[in-house]
Amino acid sequence: MEQEIQTKRIMLTVAYDGTNYCGWQVQKNGNTIEGELNRCLSDLLGEDIKVTGGSRTDSGVHALENIAVFDTKAKMPAGKFSYALNQRLPEDIRIQGSKQVDADFHPRHCFSKKTYEYRIYNAEFPLPVKRFYSYFTYVPLNEKRMQEAASYLVGEHDFKSFCSSGSVVESTVRTIYEARVYREENEIIIRVTGNGFLYNMVRIIAGTLMEAGRGNIEPEEVKRIIEKKDRAYAGPTAPANGLILYQYEIL
Amino acid sequence: MEQEIQTKRIMLTVAYDGTNYCGWQVQKNGNTIEGELNRCLSDLLGEDIKVTGGSRTDSGVHALENIAVFDTKAKMPAGKFSYALNQRLPEDIRIQGSKQVDADFHPRHCFSKKTYEYRIYNAEFPLPVKRFYSYFTYVPLNEKRMQEAASYLVGEHDFKSFCSSGSVVESTVRTIYEARVYREENEIIIRVTGNGFLYNMVRIIAGTLMEAGRGNIEPEEVKRIIEKKDRAYAGPTAPANGLILYQYEIL
Repeated sequence: MEQEIQTKRIMLTVAYDGTNYCGWQVQKNGNTIEGELNRCLSDLLGEDIKVTGGSRTDSGVHALENIAVFDTKAKMPAGKFSYALNQRLPEDIRIQGSKQVDADFHPRHCFSKKTYEYRIYNAEFPLPVKRFYSYFTYVPLNEKRMQEAASYLVGEHDFKSFCSSGSVVESTVRTIYEARVYREENEIIIRVTGNGFLYNMVRIIAGTLMEAGRGNIEPEEVKRIIEKKDRAYAGPTAPANGLILYQYEIL
Repeated sequence: MEQEIQTKRIMLTVAYDGTNYCGWQVQKNGNTIEGELNRCLSDLLGEDIKVTGGSRTDSGVHALENIAVFDTKAKMPAGKFSYALNQRLPEDIRIQGSKQVDADFHPRHCFSKKTYEYRIYNAEFPLPVKRFYSYFTYVPLNEKRMQEAASYLVGEHDFKSFCSSGSVVESTVRTIYEARVYREENEIIIRVTGNGFLYNMVRIIAGTLMEAGRGNIEPEEVKRIIEKKDRAYAGPTAPANGLILYQYEIL
């Protein structure tokens, strides 16, 4: 009688520097985070592994905590995957932890709370050590105006104005729990926590808050932009390098 | 009658990401910060320019503020050099300011106060976005023990124990004005301010403080290490990537 081999579902917490990747999602041309995870896991386990990602970040976007799950028949203890994978992954991707989850757990179809950070280096000249992790602008930004503008985002709203056109989602309603803007010397940090984010949503929020910060729009204009439910009313999509998926809490 | 062309001495404040350079000082093989400055200045001004650096940082070491001076006959206003140079320099070097100084000003033969920062990312797993700017170790470090150890460095001392052998200097006596160690989440930051630093001094200080932080030596041992005036008694030279020249004040 053959012994039945148990399949288990493993959840990885994944940190990466997105500078040299074409984003999370596997594509034909170019390296992706998902592609590297699939390759290294398949090598490691001798199975054809395809991970399911939590947040499909764009090209150039970074993460301190993204989520990936996969199923395996391997007997390796769940907590050991992080060590084994880190031996194989390139140095710009590092697993921060691994554990077993329920067989029906899906990182995008569960209650979660995500926090994104958008960093802006705001000074007369760029600082080389910040160039991959902070968007540079010499145009003076007032972070107090940006904080006021950000406050109108908090709550449950239809964020259609803050979603890149071309994206197909059932609903554009999301809840923002917190939106903070503060300055640390020459750097302005936007930190937004919500139950989910639409395509390019944080980058459009950042672009819109910068419009308020430089005085092109009044902070309270954000309220009207939300009401319009039209991408054309929000500010430009801010560049990817300033964006980092900061925290991903499974509730 | 020919008009005499006035020569003026210009001081640049230079920031750089040292990751891809063989340090500050010009050498035959490999790119250096000094080499890039000489090349771009000579191109820009049509003169053979050779800058004199303030701190000759090692390969892989970064700077928010280093100093370079040079003489030129160019009529360009002193404050404009930063803009003109930044157009030509690679993106990992950026001038933060330029101004005229006295014709006899020398950045190494003047009273100055330099602050170096050494960063350690101290967690179970490395974080990719920190990898070029923070030395990683998973060995738990106690920053309070490190701060206590650092306190013995403050004052005027002969720092021969904290100077790599092979270096030739007239005196190994230096004054440390301040030495602080603190933790920001998983990162430990060592910040040392002094009137000058010997070859590899901050990296040997960092290596020694880590020995105290992990419990290999008692914090007060630093006092005895200084007294010994022998490199063999101090800790290892910590890797270059964690080091940044943070501030360079001309007094």
